[in-house]
Amino acid sequence: MMTTPHDYARTHADRFRQQLFELLRIPSISTDPQRVADVQRAAQWVADDLRRIGMQRVDIMPTAGHPVVYAEWQGAGENAPTVLVYGHYDVQPAELEAGWTSDPFEPVIRDGRIYARGSSDDKGQAFAHVKAAESLLATGSSPVNLKFLIEGEEEIGSPNLGAWVREHRDLLRADVCVISDTSILAIDQPSICYALRGLAYMEVEVWGPKQDLHSGGFGGMVHNPAQALAEIIAALHNPDGSVAVPGFYDDVLPLSDDERAELQRSAAPESYWRDMTGVPQFWGEPAYALHERVGGRPTLEINGFVSGFYGAGSKTVLPAKALAKISCRLVANQNPRRIFELVRDQIARLTPPTVRSEVRLIAEAFPAMTDPREPAIQAASAAYEKGWGRRPLFERGGGTLPIMADLQRELNVPVVLLGFGLRSDGAHGPDEHFSVEMFHKGIDTAIYFFEELGK
Amino acid sequence: MMTTPHDYARTHADRFRQQLFELLRIPSISTDPQRVADVQRAAQWVADDLRRIGMQRVDIMPTAGHPVVYAEWQGAGENAPTVLVYGHYDVQPAELEAGWTSDPFEPVIRDGRIYARGSSDDKGQAFAHVKAAESLLATGSSPVNLKFLIEGEEEIGSPNLGAWVREHRDLLRADVCVISDTSILAIDQPSICYALRGLAYMEVEVWGPKQDLHSGGFGGMVHNPAQALAEIIAALHNPDGSVAVPGFYDDVLPLSDDERAELQRSAAPESYWRDMTGVPQFWGEPAYALHERVGGRPTLEINGFVSGFYGAGSKTVLPAKALAKISCRLVANQNPRRIFELVRDQIARLTPPTVRSEVRLIAEAFPAMTDPREPAIQAASAAYEKGWGRRPLFERGGGTLPIMADLQRELNVPVVLLGFGLRSDGAHGPDEHFSVEMFHKGIDTAIYFFEELGK
Repeated sequence: MMTTPHDYARTHADRFRQQLFELLRIPSISTDPQRVADVQRAAQWVADDLRRIGMQRVDIMPTAGHPVVYAEWQGAGENAPTVLVYGHYDVQPAELEAGWTSDPFEPVIRDGRIYARGSSDDKGQAFAHVKAAESLLATGSSPVNLKFLIEGEEEIGSPNLGAWVREHRDLLRADVCVISDTSILAIDQPSICYALRGLAYMEVEVWGPKQDLHSGGFGGMVHNPAQALAEIIAALHNPDGSVAVPGFYDDVLPLSDDERAELQRSAAPESYWRDMTGVPQFWGEPAYALHERVGGRPTLEINGFVSGFYGAGSKTVLPAKALAKISCRLVANQNPRRIFELVRDQIARLTPPTVRSEVRLIAEAFPAMTDPREPAIQAASAAYEKGWGRRPLFERGGGTLPIMADLQRELNVPVVLLGFGLRSDGAHGPDEHFSVEMFHKGIDTAIYFFEELGK
Repeated sequence: MMTTPHDYARTHADRFRQQLFELLRIPSISTDPQRVADVQRAAQWVADDLRRIGMQRVDIMPTAGHPVVYAEWQGAGENAPTVLVYGHYDVQPAELEAGWTSDPFEPVIRDGRIYARGSSDDKGQAFAHVKAAESLLATGSSPVNLKFLIEGEEEIGSPNLGAWVREHRDLLRADVCVISDTSILAIDQPSICYALRGLAYMEVEVWGPKQDLHSGGFGGMVHNPAQALAEIIAALHNPDGSVAVPGFYDDVLPLSDDERAELQRSAAPESYWRDMTGVPQFWGEPAYALHERVGGRPTLEINGFVSGFYGAGSKTVLPAKALAKISCRLVANQNPRRIFELVRDQIARLTPPTVRSEVRLIAEAFPAMTDPREPAIQAASAAYEKGWGRRPLFERGGGTLPIMADLQRELNVPVVLLGFGLRSDGAHGPDEHFSVEMFHKGIDTAIYFFEELGK
């Protein structure tokens, strides 16, 4: 009787964990100039393992920053679908003194969890796919062609990946892309996040007098720029919490009744949001549930502002200028550049002749969404059900993962977020951990996912 | 023929200047802990000179900070009026490297101006009164009793003077109080500022979530406190520039038609305000001229605000709180505590249930005004006319001189601002100077003022 890839994974479970520990011991902190050699070493380790498991082509490919590890196996033949796996081998900084119970780069298992920086984000999740691939290749049973794109700059915002993907469109051609760098609802409740929000981040500056003035000498005849900026900001929302920028909602793909019913099943209770925020009362568009306001609706947020004097005590200044950081979270099918232009134009209209203003675009990211009815999502759903013994719920995320939209747009493929982490993993904090059970269920689920795609 | 006090002042002009130079050489910087002995030395020098000129009682009186120099001469008899002269012997800091052409504490005359720290603010102006008193006492011709209150903490906000004045109400009893610590319109155009604005300085804090949140994870369901504060600030003014706080104008003494006509005569042209501010267009209550908005109307000014992230680049934070500094300039007969309470209550009403807010009083000062029809002001007008050969114009100032209101309220006397400085004297900057001509005209005008009061 032939060994199944699932049997193989079970048989080799201990070794898989030992190998993950090897990778976790490399402090590949992408933001730290002292760790360039370690980042390089992690890329090398990943490439070596991809070669070891039988990938036909493995390259460490340079970018303007840290390299991309690329690998492919085309053994399933021209008629079989090709799956592109995205992950990252770099990690956030971590120092023992920041509150870690044990050395962040010496993985240990406590209470069934692997404690180490990168265990969940994203070495553990990405490595689950590598070991799923190994299990399929070793048992000669992969029904799909495989490509891996494991980058080294995710934790610093992937500054070079967009260009690299654009340059390597042909190389990366695939039928489905899968990213395992997210969380599921609970250890016993898998979930599929099929949409993430985009971002248009801008700053607005308002100028009044040519220099700071004495509020006694000039107060009353000059439009205070802090006040003028406050007036502009106040005018950017309607009383019902919707954004008061003409055209802002024009491209928003509405939530259907079916989708809203599905999302309701995965919705956290109000008490969860209350505990997380501690606000005296919720706010926002009353026509939408709390989870819909975050996942399914665009926003306009004041990330901060500054003007004049704000220290202890008093200073009677009439400030010369005021600045605010404003960002819009966007949903499918909004375009960040267009949203920037709409907000910029509205602020220009709201700016009275008594002051001057300017709005500058600081950062942008497209929203991403994969229709839950896509076969790739259905395959993920079936895979989770087999791996976990429980049907996944469907979610929309409020955050932004620029690579999801970039891959979707550049490669024109459905992107599936096949998360194996948990929100409680402490991804960027001390004592980051990854459940041993999740690691092995992840490998199993990835195998099921590839099998489903091959059907 | 008897020598007149004016003859005396003319005869002794050179010595008066030499004495002023002695006082200017003492670096009595009240804010500098290294200069405590110098501040003490200046007090001693002033007290010695007051004794020298024949004041009957001279005391250096302690406060919690730098001492007050008090002197009195009661030789005019019980039926003669008593004049209290206020001035200060402390100065702002000054360092040669800050842009001074010559040592700030080694006075020199260039182009008819005495260059030295304190020459105009306030040693030169206060000393003009001392030398006017000397001229009257030496010629046996003072028609008024004289009291001097020369303090040493004006440049640090007179933190101990209010209490000291309250404690020494009987000692300070007078019929008129005169302060020479302000400016006139131009070297050839004297002016009398008969009103200054008060101040209610407060800070408002708005809290939303219990900690900074991820704008992706929570944006849309939480009322952003920076936005909420902007909405509150925007609601504090009406579209016409008036303050939208119920009761705010209740106690405002309206400008009469006569007063407005008089103020119009001293009003700077619009081009002056344009040059000073550089704003694209003026703002404020359209029913009032620019100089009336500053001098005759109360304001509500945003002195600054801060919230969340405002550095370079982007940070997608939904801030936990926002803070603004807000100050109201007040006109007679407004009460700073009552204005604070009105603004506080209105902000409480404007605060939606989605956030919490608090308003705290930081500093307060009463507005001050002496009716231009008061005999003391008429005496000052006549004195200026004799000293300058030109009738003074009448002004209202937009700034705040807490001592004016404090003396007026505590002693219940009319306070006259008999300024001998010019706005261009550079009072707190490098190369502070005082016109030699203004010094001697000041002495002459002070003598005329005392003579007028004695009539």
